[in-house]
Amino acid sequence: MSQQVAQEILTELESLRLIDPHTHINPLSAASETLADIMGYHYYTELAHSAGLAKDQIEEPGISPKEKVGRLVPWLATIENTAQYSWLLEMCQAFFDFTDDRITEDNWESLYDASLAKMQAPDWEQQVLEQSGLDQVYLTNDFDDPLTGFDTAFYVPCLRTDDLVFHLGRSEVRERLQQCTDVTPGSSASLKDALAKLFAHFTRNGVHACAISLPPSFAPRAVAAGTADAVVAKVFSGTELTESETDSLSCFVFWSLAEMCAEYKLPFDLMIGVNRRVFEAGVFQGQDLYDKRVSLIQYKALFNAFPQVTFPVSVLSETSNQELVSYSWIFPNVVTNGHWWYSNIPVFIENDTRARLQAVPKTKQIGYYSDMYKLEFALPKFAMYRRILSKVLAGDFVVDRGWSVEKAVELGELVLRGNVETIFGPA
Amino acid sequence: MSQQVAQEILTELESLRLIDPHTHINPLSAASETLADIMGYHYYTELAHSAGLAKDQIEEPGISPKEKVGRLVPWLATIENTAQYSWLLEMCQAFFDFTDDRITEDNWESLYDASLAKMQAPDWEQQVLEQSGLDQVYLTNDFDDPLTGFDTAFYVPCLRTDDLVFHLGRSEVRERLQQCTDVTPGSSASLKDALAKLFAHFTRNGVHACAISLPPSFAPRAVAAGTADAVVAKVFSGTELTESETDSLSCFVFWSLAEMCAEYKLPFDLMIGVNRRVFEAGVFQGQDLYDKRVSLIQYKALFNAFPQVTFPVSVLSETSNQELVSYSWIFPNVVTNGHWWYSNIPVFIENDTRARLQAVPKTKQIGYYSDMYKLEFALPKFAMYRRILSKVLAGDFVVDRGWSVEKAVELGELVLRGNVETIFGPA
Amino acid sequence: MSQQVAQEILTELESLRLIDPHTHINPLSAASETLADIMGYHYYTELAHSAGLAKDQIEEPGISPKEKVGRLVPWLATIENTAQYSWLLEMCQAFFDFTDDRITEDNWESLYDASLAKMQAPDWEQQVLEQSGLDQVYLTNDFDDPLTGFDTAFYVPCLRTDDLVFHLGRSEVRERLQQCTDVTPGSSASLKDALAKLFAHFTRNGVHACAISLPPSFAPRAVAAGTADAVVAKVFSGTELTESETDSLSCFVFWSLAEMCAEYKLPFDLMIGVNRRVFEAGVFQGQDLYDKRVSLIQYKALFNAFPQVTFPVSVLSETSNQELVSYSWIFPNVVTNGHWWYSNIPVFIENDTRARLQAVPKTKQIGYYSDMYKLEFALPKFAMYRRILSKVLAGDFVVDRGWSVEKAVELGELVLRGNVETIFGPA
Repeated sequence: MSQQVAQEILTELESLRLIDPHTHINPLSAASETLADIMGYHYYTELAHSAGLAKDQIEEPGISPKEKVGRLVPWLATIENTAQYSWLLEMCQAFFDFTDDRITEDNWESLYDASLAKMQAPDWEQQVLEQSGLDQVYLTNDFDDPLTGFDTAFYVPCLRTDDLVFHLGRSEVRERLQQCTDVTPGSSASLKDALAKLFAHFTRNGVHACAISLPPSFAPRAVAAGTADAVVAKVFSGTELTESETDSLSCFVFWSLAEMCAEYKLPFDLMIGVNRRVFEAGVFQGQDLYDKRVSLIQYKALFNAFPQVTFPVSVLSETSNQELVSYSWIFPNVVTNGHWWYSNIPVFIENDTRARLQAVPKTKQIGYYSDMYKLEFALPKFAMYRRILSKVLAGDFVVDRGWSVEKAVELGELVLRGNVETIFGPA
Repeated sequence: MSQQVAQEILTELESLRLIDPHTHINPLSAASETLADIMGYHYYTELAHSAGLAKDQIEEPGISPKEKVGRLVPWLATIENTAQYSWLLEMCQAFFDFTDDRITEDNWESLYDASLAKMQAPDWEQQVLEQSGLDQVYLTNDFDDPLTGFDTAFYVPCLRTDDLVFHLGRSEVRERLQQCTDVTPGSSASLKDALAKLFAHFTRNGVHACAISLPPSFAPRAVAAGTADAVVAKVFSGTELTESETDSLSCFVFWSLAEMCAEYKLPFDLMIGVNRRVFEAGVFQGQDLYDKRVSLIQYKALFNAFPQVTFPVSVLSETSNQELVSYSWIFPNVVTNGHWWYSNIPVFIENDTRARLQAVPKTKQIGYYSDMYKLEFALPKFAMYRRILSKVLAGDFVVDRGWSVEKAVELGELVLRGNVETIFGPA
Repeated sequence: MSQQVAQEILTELESLRLIDPHTHINPLSAASETLADIMGYHYYTELAHSAGLAKDQIEEPGISPKEKVGRLVPWLATIENTAQYSWLLEMCQAFFDFTDDRITEDNWESLYDASLAKMQAPDWEQQVLEQSGLDQVYLTNDFDDPLTGFDTAFYVPCLRTDDLVFHLGRSEVRERLQQCTDVTPGSSASLKDALAKLFAHFTRNGVHACAISLPPSFAPRAVAAGTADAVVAKVFSGTELTESETDSLSCFVFWSLAEMCAEYKLPFDLMIGVNRRVFEAGVFQGQDLYDKRVSLIQYKALFNAFPQVTFPVSVLSETSNQELVSYSWIFPNVVTNGHWWYSNIPVFIENDTRARLQAVPKTKQIGYYSDMYKLEFALPKFAMYRRILSKVLAGDFVVDRGWSVEKAVELGELVLRGNVETIFGPA
């Protein structure tokens, strides 16, 4: 019975148009041009590398897109079990009329050619958006992004701040900041002025969120003005900071960003738990991992200090999901946000979704984002999520709690779409 | 097939009369007097606050019970997905003849009035107990509770010791201790004398357990007599302790309580993992959270030192459940105890129950307690647990292992009721 | 539908012959001689002890096998719910024609006698191997094992190195090393010479892996030559090391073992997370537990330094499974290995298997090993795993992803058998 109900709910949810509230889309080149844009996604290159394909085969400079795909294809057999592969197959079937159930050394060239023909259509981007049912796509913008050349009402800017919080020690980051703000920070106040200019620029261009990814060790705190002045002056003089000074600077910038979010009424997306460059010989974007020993208690001071800022929180490890559920259940300004990266796998999505729907106010849950680099990925990723969501709604709500299908569908629509608009702003 | 078997098991388990081995019931005012007693439960006020209702709306001094309920009702729509809301609905349906499937701004007043009429019956407490099938309700008593004015054979005393272990630094706690024991501790020996008087008093009044909730950082250890003497003398002289002295005092008192449990043959309920006042602006009882980075290895010394004391252990985070299972599998004196607070949600109960039933001796598992503040909550909470337990027994035992329904029901009865009497004492 | 498909898959997988890639079998006495060899397995003695049977009853010197079984039997009722008990029942049914559904005080003696008659057959070992479908059984060999007296092509040597890494501080371990290598290490170089002799000896005798179990606190790192020389000289002079020197020695030996694995082209099995002797009064082998606060980030340096060594990793806590999945997804030299000890329970196996099959290249997963001490255990343990694997393949692949049963069976065969040969060497 549960399976049939899940199917009913799924059918309803499939007709819903979507907003994708976190992606890495380049709005000037949003759709793929060749299959290499799709198979070059780090999920495939890192899995192929993990399965045995040499990094220099994957990243050899100057190889053509077709050559690159041709090198990856023989390794697809080793990862055909993965959820990631299932997205690839679903994209090929949905967008490129692929009808086989495996991409092999025998059929890939015809797939490559067929897909190329499709992608060369001048309206390919629009075709993908239409077929995917996307009403809006949120971006991940560098702080010095001019935000020009695209429709910011559709491709919604999001101010990504990792560089500001963690990399002001690099001269190129400081130069980028000085260049785009015309401020040369020498004190905590002038650094805040520079940050304010960024927020003003992004606000003028329809920004919907400020965002950052954070290592497991990070624990934000307010920094005393004197300390902040000293480390800002030191770093902008080009002097290298000690580890403790670097931490103070990170905390100061982070805290200042939260203040700006309060002032500019922006949600502050926290993506908690990633260690960068753990596997240094890994392929591009396939080097990061994590330490599950992180707790949201590290954000106690922040959540208490900024009741007026909404924090959509993503956690990298599924062992953090119950904390996220509990903190969202207690703190008005904490909301659950999607299923991030290593947790974006059916078994974790299912368990995490069940816990969130059972214990967090329904208005405080952003169900899903694709995290995609190319537009074609929204379709299979949201499809995966919708299937799991339908299964959970059917089992936990219709069967176990006697809800009507209609009521379950309403809840599904809320976490899939409604809350995105309430929390980040209307489409 | 599994669903049908679960239903058969559930029917059997529903006829079982219950003992609730951990509650916060005030035996002098056990049942609710108005719907505000039910909806004032922190599970609802904190969720409504989390969803957006201001704390001063909820806790405004002097508002009538009906006004309080009226302010909460509009927010129920935002939490109707939660398990907590499902308890509310089930209470209203079971006790107050409520037949709608939602409590809304349109129907709440008639519900309020109907429930008020019911609750004003002079035998309301007995009606609730009868309908809920409760044979005994364990309490949570302050150490200086006189334990008079109620039937301790039904409302079973339990000596709660958080104040003694963690708050002797507060003068009012020391005064309460001196007052109820007639001892003014000046040394470790005289403090133990005071504790012994508490145990004697509670024992005379039918106590069934000593209990405490513990922060994630706590790691009990024996404290050398000299150190103990020094910190006891210092704190009772009214001098503030250093952090390290406070820890020594906590460890000394805790260890002494374990010694008393050995002497007085009492189980020592450990509720492990809560951080108090994490969200300081939260509503009453809605401020506590946790840090999942806690391990039962912190209790190694304790479990080894007191083989003669049974420790029913509750863990706050579901990431601690496997440790609890493993420690109960190895240590004769460790038993699993219920599904506490943030883990008292179907998805966690289900996973945790499966693990416990699959790997811990069946005689060492206390299935469930309600943790309730008002009697009406036992019914929906035990109902939730029983449904999950039946599902697990059906799937893992009848279907997967070929057990008879009868044998599965026996196992269910043991964890629901039998073990409570074996571990804490007969009803 | 899913249940029927699972049954189809299971039937196919049941015909597959197996390699058991990690056991504690003594090849000179591989099969049980009496039921006491089976029920003396620590899983039963520790559970019976946990349920209440005194250690001195279980371990009384000089009691006969039948007496020992007779003492354990009354306690079986208290653990009949456990997965461990289900293995016992399945062994008795499969090997000894036992037809009851419980082993009781009434029927155990006839079971004992019937099993004894079976086990006394001169070809009992072959009967068990045949009925269990085992093609190879990997051992756990002390570093000074002569590896003689058995067929190393069937009972495959595995070099266990806990003593070398963690116990060189004990004089008897140093003496064993000196004796079997004819080297008296006085420097890091000569200790490496000794280790090389061990690898040469094991390699001559068909070794397939080097292995070690590791405490949660361990974090391997390269040790500077000078430091290594100093601690090696000191420990082999018989002087006790400080804690920090002990850690340096452990890291030096461990790192050297990884270097030998590279040189001798051996996989290095890491079994991560066990704390030894947590319950010191526990029965033999029933004293170890763990601290879940461990992360694979502790192995970052190792995984980066030895790309040419394959590390089959087992984790003790299921809260480590997602890290294992993620690290295997990223690092080419990390593969998932079985379901170890406290995680070898259906609910954890099921969740862990789902995550691995959904996100790790299919060629990088060793599905299962029995960890057995006596041959009879392979049958029920692999049977348990196969049933869970079939259920996961049916639900996640055939039903949810539309795979054919045939394709699902191929995946099952790969993780059950194929990968064992690819990773450790052909049978």
